[in-house]
Amino acid sequence: MVEPGVYEALARPLVGPLDPYFIGVLDQVRHMLRSTFGTRNPLTWAVSGTGSAGMETAIANFVEPGATFAVLECGFFGNRMTEMGRRQGARVVVLEKPWGEVFGYDEVAEFLRREKPAVVAFVHAETSTGALQDPRPIIRAAREVDALVIADAVTSLGAMPVSVDDVGIDIAYSCSQKGLSCPPGLAPFTASPRAVERLYQRKTPVPAWYLDVRLLGEYFDQHQYHHTASASLYYALHEGLRLIHEEGLENRFARHRRANQAMVRGLEGLGLRMHVAEGHRIPHVNTPRVPDGVDNGKVRKHLLEKHGIEIALGRGPLDGKVFRIGVMGPMANEDCVQMFLGKFGEALTA
Amino acid sequence: MVEPGVYEALARPLVGPLDPYFIGVLDQVRHMLRSTFGTRNPLTWAVSGTGSAGMETAIANFVEPGATFAVLECGFFGNRMTEMGRRQGARVVVLEKPWGEVFGYDEVAEFLRREKPAVVAFVHAETSTGALQDPRPIIRAAREVDALVIADAVTSLGAMPVSVDDVGIDIAYSCSQKGLSCPPGLAPFTASPRAVERLYQRKTPVPAWYLDVRLLGEYFDQHQYHHTASASLYYALHEGLRLIHEEGLENRFARHRRANQAMVRGLEGLGLRMHVAEGHRIPHVNTPRVPDGVDNGKVRKHLLEKHGIEIALGRGPLDGKVFRIGVMGPMANEDCVQMFLGKFGEALTA
Repeated sequence: MVEPGVYEALARPLVGPLDPYFIGVLDQVRHMLRSTFGTRNPLTWAVSGTGSAGMETAIANFVEPGATFAVLECGFFGNRMTEMGRRQGARVVVLEKPWGEVFGYDEVAEFLRREKPAVVAFVHAETSTGALQDPRPIIRAAREVDALVIADAVTSLGAMPVSVDDVGIDIAYSCSQKGLSCPPGLAPFTASPRAVERLYQRKTPVPAWYLDVRLLGEYFDQHQYHHTASASLYYALHEGLRLIHEEGLENRFARHRRANQAMVRGLEGLGLRMHVAEGHRIPHVNTPRVPDGVDNGKVRKHLLEKHGIEIALGRGPLDGKVFRIGVMGPMANEDCVQMFLGKFGEALTA
Repeated sequence: MVEPGVYEALARPLVGPLDPYFIGVLDQVRHMLRSTFGTRNPLTWAVSGTGSAGMETAIANFVEPGATFAVLECGFFGNRMTEMGRRQGARVVVLEKPWGEVFGYDEVAEFLRREKPAVVAFVHAETSTGALQDPRPIIRAAREVDALVIADAVTSLGAMPVSVDDVGIDIAYSCSQKGLSCPPGLAPFTASPRAVERLYQRKTPVPAWYLDVRLLGEYFDQHQYHHTASASLYYALHEGLRLIHEEGLENRFARHRRANQAMVRGLEGLGLRMHVAEGHRIPHVNTPRVPDGVDNGKVRKHLLEKHGIEIALGRGPLDGKVFRIGVMGPMANEDCVQMFLGKFGEALTA
């Protein structure tokens, strides 16, 4: 759900990509993205593409051909990282766990000591399973082998802390339409000075011109023409970030946590069991298991057709086994949750 | 300049990338892009990025590592193609001419016979010089060596015929903000069945996952999730294309030609000389030479500050030598041209 003010911002008059007014908007967006990511990284901006373009920006720039790239995979988007790494000509090594679980220090450290990767990637909040990965054990293990760490923050940014600097993430990217509640089309991106230093040691050019971090830096920092950034999408992102900061990041995150507590209590009250263990759940993506004997398609159809409420299903190994109920942005409040639970309970028994 | 209805379309309520309503919008956009490109290519859609993402989609998919890639370069954007081809690991060969000139059959045929490229690229309308390249002599020469032809239609699409099928272009791409007069952020793209056949013979995977034509085809044709296409930008492109078809493509093109004739007559009446020879000019990008003794910076500043009119300067070798005056979309009419000429004349002598 997008706030009315964000829709209004979308329709503001267009200007060119080097217009001083637009450069001012970009600078404010960068400033607000830094606080939302929890970073002081100068290299913080938005890529002109969707979250997947953000993922490719991270992998195409920081994973060199022939380098070892370690992916911690327990969901749909870990798999996508693996595919992108292979396309860069990297030696991709994968540590897999069942979908919905998370990684702990010992298993990651053992894996990284064996594989000695240059770069390690993980998904912070795996929307396909509802599991939230604590970045700290992964970063601790990665530091021991001097690997850079890429965090996929597509689902987490804006709805919960990412804490890039505090936990020590080197590279993170996101999208504009989930936790930030803006229209899709931009991919917030940040990289640490340590990551930038490695990038400048690359021996081969980045095949992706459109997503080349050095060229993008020349645009965002020195205002040299690179591509025609979409003013409309930036106006909307600016307004979305402004509203987030008006509420306050801590208030916003607390609101999402309260909505999650109410949701989990309510779902358990309806007799459902959460797929992800307590303490490892994404606050704004709830994945209760589909109860035995319940036709998930019928439940989703009932909600959509009778109430205009869209919920998703699991993917891959969780297909048909869990519901995925997103509660983020303006909808993340107890009233919305109670309203949803009433209708969901009705749909389960209809 | 963007029509008010296009701004309104931008702000319509968002839906997901696989929503049946949105798929309907996509299908209509594809249909209208085909007529605007002048093609029946089934593979016609818009890439979720700017015109440069369209260029990279063409080059990253159709130019394989080790293949010979011939670029006909006489302006800023030909140079960009060269750079992208090198990043794909191709053997890039360049035929250069002074900025503002165009290529004829003999020189291109001689070059292509010698270099035997797999792919040839040219810029249809070089916005950096104002020169319009006739595609036919290039395509005739390319066919003789069995090369695919990529046409950059970033500046031409929507303001003049591209005639993809009639002239025999294999791959063309554009942007949403110039001739189509929509917000930037999407890159219309088309490829012939012959080009698609070659793509399926590629021996190496396309490094660019986000711009992979086969994956994009699975999204646009089979509606398999690939990325979250920006509904807002598609709504706007849909409305922009609808307005273009409401006016009629032929009427729109004729309107741009009439505006161009009035502009050239007026500029010559002010004593300026056009940089590009008659018969080779882009109808909607006029590049008169800066007269001796005129301070181009002062003229541009006068127009911008007194009248809110922005005109551009030449780039590269034409820096400071030509003005670049774009007249496209809603502004391409004789009234606007006369109004501009009055103020431009005043600025030249101020």
